[in-house]
Amino acid sequence: MIPDLDTLLQARERIRRQVHTTPVLTCRALNHISGAELYFKCENFQKVGAFKFRGASNAILSLDENQARAGVATHSSGNHAAAVALAARLRGIPAHIVMPETAPEIKKRAVQGYGAQITFCEPTIAAREQTLERILTETGATLVHPYNDHAVIAGQATAALELLEQLPQAPDFVLSPIGGGGLISGTALVVHYLAPNTKAVGSEPRLADDAARSFRSGEIQPPMPPKTIADGLLTCLGDKTFAIIREYVHDILTVSEKAIVTAMRMTWERMKIIIEPSSAVPLAAVLEHPDFFRGSRTAIILTGGNADLDNLPWLAADRLPDNST
Amino acid sequence: MIPDLDTLLQARERIRRQVHTTPVLTCRALNHISGAELYFKCENFQKVGAFKFRGASNAILSLDENQARAGVATHSSGNHAAAVALAARLRGIPAHIVMPETAPEIKKRAVQGYGAQITFCEPTIAAREQTLERILTETGATLVHPYNDHAVIAGQATAALELLEQLPQAPDFVLSPIGGGGLISGTALVVHYLAPNTKAVGSEPRLADDAARSFRSGEIQPPMPPKTIADGLLTCLGDKTFAIIREYVHDILTVSEKAIVTAMRMTWERMKIIIEPSSAVPLAAVLEHPDFFRGSRTAIILTGGNADLDNLPWLAADRLPDNST
Repeated sequence: MIPDLDTLLQARERIRRQVHTTPVLTCRALNHISGAELYFKCENFQKVGAFKFRGASNAILSLDENQARAGVATHSSGNHAAAVALAARLRGIPAHIVMPETAPEIKKRAVQGYGAQITFCEPTIAAREQTLERILTETGATLVHPYNDHAVIAGQATAALELLEQLPQAPDFVLSPIGGGGLISGTALVVHYLAPNTKAVGSEPRLADDAARSFRSGEIQPPMPPKTIADGLLTCLGDKTFAIIREYVHDILTVSEKAIVTAMRMTWERMKIIIEPSSAVPLAAVLEHPDFFRGSRTAIILTGGNADLDNLPWLAADRLPDNST
Repeated sequence: MIPDLDTLLQARERIRRQVHTTPVLTCRALNHISGAELYFKCENFQKVGAFKFRGASNAILSLDENQARAGVATHSSGNHAAAVALAARLRGIPAHIVMPETAPEIKKRAVQGYGAQITFCEPTIAAREQTLERILTETGATLVHPYNDHAVIAGQATAALELLEQLPQAPDFVLSPIGGGGLISGTALVVHYLAPNTKAVGSEPRLADDAARSFRSGEIQPPMPPKTIADGLLTCLGDKTFAIIREYVHDILTVSEKAIVTAMRMTWERMKIIIEPSSAVPLAAVLEHPDFFRGSRTAIILTGGNADLDNLPWLAADRLPDNST
């Protein structure tokens, strides 16, 4: 059953003691460039550097004592892995993370640093799922899915709950990226319940526009080949997130790789904050769809700040795929 | 006469309407690494991306109507130029900026974007000073010195005034970089007047340690060859800043280029904020002088965020000078 308002408010109380209340920043220069009044919810300052810590915290703090004792498990090589690892450590329970052996060293170290048990596997989806299945069977751990889980969705919704309290008035739009759809689902539910004149809008790289095509076709579309630099947005929707997105999301906009790089650099330069490529997708949408946003009050959820400081996309413009614009 | 407390408090009221009250951030990871309790005053989020806007604002808002009408002038290719240009625009008066013709395009455009009149000159100190002298004579403009000016020092002091209000209790140390000494002078006066148990400590690249040598020798030492990556800290002290520093600064610590790069990257990675190399010098001092800071509550003024995103120092480690460590 789709989480109701009480469920979202309970999630907020449940995780309040362990998540950061992240600031909302504004930037006159970006308002001027975009012709809109922009508010940036800085989940790049969240623990583990990403909003994912909210969903993982809610899922893990929702377990009863018996479930908790057996620990949690997931597969991820990204922010969700770190989020589950830290949330499990804070509850004092085991976390089992399945990662492809090809995952970047820095991500492996982050997860290990939080005390999680990593199981490496071949870098294929089949290998990841089989390995995870085996671990779940062997350990009795509870799966914490990165998005297709109502407790995770309710946790991600807490970013929008905070946001609405922090803004002087409800915005016209709340804009977030879409990967598996956990964040936009939670966000759309919050504005549906609490700010009915606010529209939740998703944004996606054109090179990974499965959610936009799912939204228009009414059927979940498979993921695309991993070509976008917004590597956090490659996964396809799940049945739980899609059910919410179909009903409560106003629209899904797509953007070019070039616009993502421009928006990322603009955020670094003008706001002096670090965001990862996936987090730049909403601002890219504002820049590429100016008629949609002009004159509006638009809140953007900056989803994470775990950028690779050794590989900045504007220093590697030749590596963008040919069909990127 | 050295600014008294009233002068500093008046500066704060004078500029309050046009400067940002910048946030103070903390970072558990950096506390853990340093063994100290660190508070970061984020002047990288200040207008023009640097604390320099405080001093320029105070100097320009202190002019009487007659002085103001003739405008202001300065020579700088850095943050002070942008600060004077914007503060003059906000007062609606002309700003004349002398810049070496070799200044980076991006800095020229920033200053022009604020509506200032740029006069280019040969890239020598003599040419800069002669050109500035000529402009002052021709226009009757008032010089806004980057640091050796009590109105500028009082403006920079407002960062520490805010900081003390924002902290739960007075810190053991307030740490800032030293270039010409405007910021550390203002900071040292504030803690002298309001937090007598707090020590103001300066920090400097070892490759530009003229202030540390001035402090120890009792005589202003000339600037060093421009070798450090902390290019905001090359200037030597002035008589007004040195008089304050001698009396009210507790100590000046020096750091290696390697520590500056490490501290800069650590701030980007752990705090998800952009700081320029000069701003990383205080954290570098904490890392290189652990016995000095261990167990202390230390506030660091992050002076600016105008980093060159096309030339990150950790991607050019081979370009550090040989004697950098």
